This record gives sequence, C-alpha cells and structure tokens, in this order.
Amino acid sequence: MIEAFLREAARICGGAHVVAGAAIEPRYLEPARYAPGRAAALLRPASTAELAQLLPLAGRHGLRLVPQGAHTGLVRAATPEDAARDVLLATERLREVFELDPLDRTLRVSAGYRLAEINERLAPHGLMLPIDLSADPSVGGMLAHNTGGTRMLRYGDVRANTLALTVVLAEGQVLRLGRGLQKGNAALPLQQLFIGSSGSLGVIAEATFKLARCPRQQAVALVAPSSVAAVMPLYQRLMDELGSLVSACEGISRPAFEAALACGGGERARWFGGELPEYALLIELSSELPAEQLDLQALLQRWLEAEFGERVADAVLGADAACWALRHHISEGLRARGKVVGFDVALPRRHFMAFRAAGRAWLAEEFAPAELADFGHLGDGGMHFNLVWPKGAPPLDEARLRAGVYALVRRFEGSFSAEHGIGPQLQASYRQLSEAALLDWSGRLQRLFDPAARLGLTDWGPAAQ
Amino acid sequence: MIEAFLREAARICGGAHVVAGAAIEPRYLEPARYAPGRAAALLRPASTAELAQLLPLAGRHGLRLVPQGAHTGLVRAATPEDAARDVLLATERLREVFELDPLDRTLRVSAGYRLAEINERLAPHGLMLPIDLSADPSVGGMLAHNTGGTRMLRYGDVRANTLALTVVLAEGQVLRLGRGLQKGNAALPLQQLFIGSSGSLGVIAEATFKLARCPRQQAVALVAPSSVAAVMPLYQRLMDELGSLVSACEGISRPAFEAALACGGGERARWFGGELPEYALLIELSSELPAEQLDLQALLQRWLEAEFGERVADAVLGADAACWALRHHISEGLRARGKVVGFDVALPRRHFMAFRAAGRAWLAEEFAPAELADFGHLGDGGMHFNLVWPKGAPPLDEARLRAGVYALVRRFEGSFSAEHGIGPQLQASYRQLSEAALLDWSGRLQRLFDPAARLGLTDWGPAAQ
Repeated sequence: MIEAFLREAARICGGAHVVAGAAIEPRYLEPARYAPGRAAALLRPASTAELAQLLPLAGRHGLRLVPQGAHTGLVRAATPEDAARDVLLATERLREVFELDPLDRTLRVSAGYRLAEINERLAPHGLMLPIDLSADPSVGGMLAHNTGGTRMLRYGDVRANTLALTVVLAEGQVLRLGRGLQKGNAALPLQQLFIGSSGSLGVIAEATFKLARCPRQQAVALVAPSSVAAVMPLYQRLMDELGSLVSACEGISRPAFEAALACGGGERARWFGGELPEYALLIELSSELPAEQLDLQALLQRWLEAEFGERVADAVLGADAACWALRHHISEGLRARGKVVGFDVALPRRHFMAFRAAGRAWLAEEFAPAELADFGHLGDGGMHFNLVWPKGAPPLDEARLRAGVYALVRRFEGSFSAEHGIGPQLQASYRQLSEAALLDWSGRLQRLFDPAARLGLTDWGPAAQ
Repeated sequence: MIEAFLREAARICGGAHVVAGAAIEPRYLEPARYAPGRAAALLRPASTAELAQLLPLAGRHGLRLVPQGAHTGLVRAATPEDAARDVLLATERLREVFELDPLDRTLRVSAGYRLAEINERLAPHGLMLPIDLSADPSVGGMLAHNTGGTRMLRYGDVRANTLALTVVLAEGQVLRLGRGLQKGNAALPLQQLFIGSSGSLGVIAEATFKLARCPRQQAVALVAPSSVAAVMPLYQRLMDELGSLVSACEGISRPAFEAALACGGGERARWFGGELPEYALLIELSSELPAEQLDLQALLQRWLEAEFGERVADAVLGADAACWALRHHISEGLRARGKVVGFDVALPRRHFMAFRAAGRAWLAEEFAPAELADFGHLGDGGMHFNLVWPKGAPPLDEARLRAGVYALVRRFEGSFSAEHGIGPQLQASYRQLSEAALLDWSGRLQRLFDPAARLGLTDWGPAAQ
C-alpha cells in the first residue's frame, strides 16, 4: 500500500525526493533531546504547488503528515512516531521565494529557509529578522512554535514580526493570508491561528516578515545584584530609565553560571573576582544611533555607577562576546553534569522570584539529588527552569517531577510552555493543565481544518471519550 | 414576543438596563458618519456573568446581538439595522476589572472602559496604553477593529499590545484566552481570531494589555520635502538613522493642509512662510531618556540641517502642539468644504506615492469635481485617501467611485481597509475583493463560533447561494 503512495508522490516531487522508511537518513529521525522516531516515508517537496498535491494524496492513503523544518524543536513536534502511518514532510527544499523589499523592510520567504542564512543575506542591507536563538530553525519551524528568543523583549516574538502567511490545508487548498503590508484589517486574521499551531491545522509554505534595522552599536554588562530580592527592582529601574534601548535582559543562576564556566564559558576569575553571585543579569543595550550621538557604553556605565555605587565592581561592562559566550555555554555545561530535565516556563514578573524560591524548596524536599540550574529570559518572564539529575543518582520519576513543577507554575499564574510550543512531549501536560472550554474549542477548530487528523502530532482537543 | 425577551433580560441585568426599541437614546443609534440605525431593544449588562446569560437568551428568542462600545467606529459595525430583530448590546457598563500591574506593565481591564480614561488613570504611574487616536473608543471596540492610529509605527496595533482576552460565545460559554504574560505558547492562539473580528464570533468582555513607558521628552517637526518624489527617500533615511526614536510619521497633502488651516488649524504664515508644500511630513521623536542624556530636539535639528541644508526653513521644529493641532483639524476642515468620502487604505511603502498619483489622475478624469485631500499614517503605509465632493456639484455615484478606488488599491497591492475594519459599510467590497478560498474558510470559521448568525453585522463568508 505504501508503495502505491510512494509512486504517486514521486510523480509529484521527483523520485529523488521520496524516500521509503528504511532508507531515511538519521538526521530526519533523531531529535535534539529525545529518542529517535520512525516513519513510513520521507517527502521533500520543493514548492507550494507540490505541497498542494501531496497533502490530499497522503489523506487518500490514510497517512499522517509530520512537517519538519530544521528539526531543532524541543517538544518532538517534528519527529514522526509511527513506522506504518507517519510520513515525514521535510520543508528544507521549499526555497522558491526570497523577496526583500528594503523600503518596506519586508521579506517574503519560503518556509525552508533557515534563520542564519536569512540574516546573512540581509546583513549587507543593514536589516535583520530580529529573532535571536542558539538554534538555527527554519522559517516554518519558527512560525509553528512562535519562537521568542533572547531579544524578544525589544523586538517581540515571531508573531509580532509576521505580516502574511501562505498555508496549504489538508485537502490541498492554498490560503494566502494577509499581505506584506505593515497594517491591514480587511479580513478575519486566519493567519494568526497557524502561528504557534505546532505543525497542525495546515502546512506553512511561505511567510512575509517585518524586518528590523541592525543596530550600529551595542553595550553589554553582566551584573551581580546584591541579592535575589534585588533583581526585579533593578530590572524595573533599568526598564524605566533605559527601556527602549534594552535589547536583552537574561537571568543566570549561580549553578548555571558554574556549569557554563566548567565547559568553555570563560575564566572564573574575570567575573566578579571569581565570587559568583546567586543570580546574575546579562543586560544588552542596542541602538541604530552612532556612538557620536549616543554613547551606549558610557550611558550604561553611568547607569551602573548610579545603581551600584561603590560596588560597581559587581558589574562587568564591555565584554560583549564573553558575556554572550557565557550565556550560550549554559546548556552544554548542564549536559556535562548529568541528565538535564528542562522546563520552559513563563511567569508574571511579579511572581518570578517567588516561583523560583518555591521551586527550589520543593525540589530540595522531594527530589533531593536534583540541582536547579535555572536561567533564561528574565525580562519577558521566561525561565528555563532546568535541573540536573546527577550521574549515579537513583532513577528519576520524571512524571511526578513534571506534575509537581507544573502545579507550582499554575500556583504562580505562569505558563507551562513559554516558547517551545506543544508537541507529543507536552501533550499530556497540555490536557491536564488547560481549561475544558479551551480544549473543547481548540479541538473543534482543529477538526474544522483537519477533520481526519492527517496533520502533525499535536492533538489540541480534549482526550477522546 | 420581544416583551418576553425584555422581561427575561431584565431579570438578568436589571430593568433599568433593558430598554425597548422606541425608548433608546439617539446616541446609541446615530453613528459618526452615517444615517441612524434601529433596534428592537438595548441591553446594558454590567458583567461577564450577565453576558453569559444574555447571549443564549437572545439566541433562544431568534434575536441578533450587535455589540457596541463607544460607537466611534467608521464602518457601521456597531449600529443595529433591524427594528424587529436586532438587539443592541452596549458594553459601557462592563467595568468590573481594572487591574494594573506596574512591574509586569500589564493592565487587565473590562471591555467597557474607554481609551482616554485608561490613559488618565495610567499617567501617574508613567505608563500608557500606546494607542493614539482622535476618537475615544472603548476597549472592546479597539479590539474588534484592531485599531492602529498615529503611533502604530512605534508601538504596533492593538493586537501587538494584547496579551489575553475573555470572550463570551453565542451559546454562553466563557473563554479565557491567554494570560497576562509577556509570552506563552501553551495553547492554540484563539484570542487572535477575535481581534479584528468586527464584533462577530463572540463578545469581548475583558482584555489584558501590555503597557508602554510614557516618554520623558518628544520633538516634533513639520517638514516640506522638495517634491513628492523626495518624500519616501526622506522617510527611508529618517528610519535608517533615527528609526527607533520615531514615534510618528504622518503625511499631509496640500489640500488637507489648506482645509485644516481654514478651520482652526493655525495661521498660514507660520508654516513655510505661507508657501505650503505639495506634501508635508509630520515627524515625531520620543524617548524615555531625559534630555541631559539625549536631546531629541537638538538631534532632530541636526538631522534636519543635514537633510535640508540651506533650505532648512522648509522644516518647522519645536511646535509640537501646533503641528498636532494642524494634523487633528484635517477631518473637520474637509467636512466644512463639502461631502467627504473617506477611504482608509494601506499600501506597500514602495507603491505609496505611485498609488496616490494614479488615484489623483483617475479622479481628475472620472470624477472631475472631486478634490483629493489625502493624509494619514505614511510611516506604516496607511493613507486616508479622502476626497471632498463640493457642495453644489452634481450627485456623486459613490458605488462607481468606490469600485474604481479599490481597483486601484488592488493594482498597487494594497489593502482596502487599513485600520477601520469591516462592517456593513464595507461588506460588499469585502466580498468582491477577497479571494474565494479566504471567504470560504472565514465563513466556516464564523459558523463554527456562531452557527445561527446571532452576533454582529458582518458576514465573513461568501454570498449565500
């Protein structure tokens, strides 16, 4: 049966781009943090027109399509599971369109392009797609999870930078939603539904993004607030006084700091004389003004002096690359220490530190060997509440851990998925933690677009009766 | 039959807030630009709980509910039409919630609050909801049309400032969508559907907005580019060099300028020695930095000197109130000259001036007595392509005019509704100008949420067969 499907698919996108299950290269099946998946076949279409034929074809054969961009996601939404029924739909060859409009500062681009390549091509024009991540996702993947990243505080999430989408629906209709305009309210905003839908509802073929001017200067400081209690008031004053210049404000707990240092993140002695604070902040200012008009480094220095007074040594200024290298070595550093269990949560800023304290206390009581090494996007309330389960410790009851952490998140009015989206990894938590009315209407909406459940691995509805 | 409905409604929201058709005060039925409407009754609920009972009640009685906020919209979406069947649902008493969180910079607020009151209450905290309009709409109305306004360039539209919504559906379910978090991707983004839905799909009861810091200084200039062709290049350099400080960039054509001057917009002689340019730009910079750190007035002055050289008299700097008064007198000035026919369109910036030239030429040929007096939000591509049909001219064929303008908008890849939304006023144009697939899926979506067509006056689907 699958053979008939493969033959027909090959007629649509060429034999070289239709691969039977056993012959799929491992990179398509091996996600970043989890066990490998399985698929009946791999398709690599090159155009919207091919997508429009492949989607109904898969439906007629009773197969489920799993769209996959760069396979950098962290919720297993792009890793097929079922060797008999799942067909992997790789979007990497969707590269039909790359249309830059420098006056409008917009980019119309096919779903298969990746973030780094886009920004390389935009740099000569002084423009950028202002999403900043350690990973290098595709356009489609970023849209599917509404990615945030370290500069969301200034530039917003992917949704805030998306002006239009082209999607292909399960039955093959092509919907062109929105235009490449900065504004326009001449239709229901259907495009918004597909942003953050984790590859369900439809396959994103193309997007039009709003671009930002690359900054002409930046200033970075790593600061050590006098205590955890001092962090949020410091952040509030920063935003009140320099807010529109702040392009990132990242939080780093001491264990995360230690882990990064132990793993290539730089020399300990250069940071605060080697006395690491319980919680550090990485602050970045950016501007398109040249330093002659506004000297960011001097401005940040004056602000730090006013804030820290005699303790100004508790701030390290002017080490942009070193600060960011430290930040970007955290994940690797944690992996070197044991099994990492990651929680990508968001909190109201007013509860951020209280949640952290409660989580720490709860872990100490219930999961004693665990080491909390949180870090993340403090400025927008995002927290990677990550912990290390040391090598050699007894087996971890991950389900109980997860339930406990999410109960705390709920108590502090947070979100159990800040920017990684929902996929099989969070499917059960999603059902447990969401209100019945939301599940009900989300399920109805999904069935409207995909009545036979042919797209993606996420089920937005309530559990089947 | 309506009597039974009124009795039951009075039990829900109190007799004083249920009014039979003939007794409705004129302000509820008289929209800004159009003929008065008619309604079978007026309801003024005070809470989400009352809404949840009223919506299904109206459905059981076969009535259609027309939500109305401050009744400032320009597409007749809030003016009921049918004296037998339409029930006006005024949201002005929905004032249950006004919860400011200064650390998170969020405001949870009921739909009945109006923009001016919100910003008055936020000002002492140095915060604002950064939507800037001549009108004073309600929270619900702004959301229903995804309002833009003069500072959208800097702060985005209403959607960009909305974190969460509470909506009541036709059958009475209350959906709480999103949280007051800066980020969160733990559900399908259903709330996005209701923003810009013109009062259909559901009734918005409450919203949580992201707030902005009020600026500590502003600098405003009115400038006269040497020609229409010079306008967009000037804008591009402005954004390239000072972009993140620009909070408004408005365009004013000479006829619009003349009209404003004739109607209280200020003295002619103070502007460019009385020699009005064919097209003027109003530029505003804002910052939360104090002038000691960055002097916006000096910065703008230097930029104008570099741009205009010896012709620097073609820029009027430091007359903030006068510049904005001029801008805000345009609409009134046009009304004094004759019948105003307004088109709220948006263009890609690259086609903005070409569209304007083509529109002007077409009007001169086909509608000779018409005077084009366009103005608007040049920075975000928004153009109020407004024309005056002089008093005493022969009757205007408005349908032919509208069709011709929209054909041009389409030729230049624009939107026929930039920020006023769709309502009965644009219903026919919406059907004519939208792609069949978009109409089809929008109609399906509307029927999902409102199967019996009980909510609002906009039909998002294709014409009935």
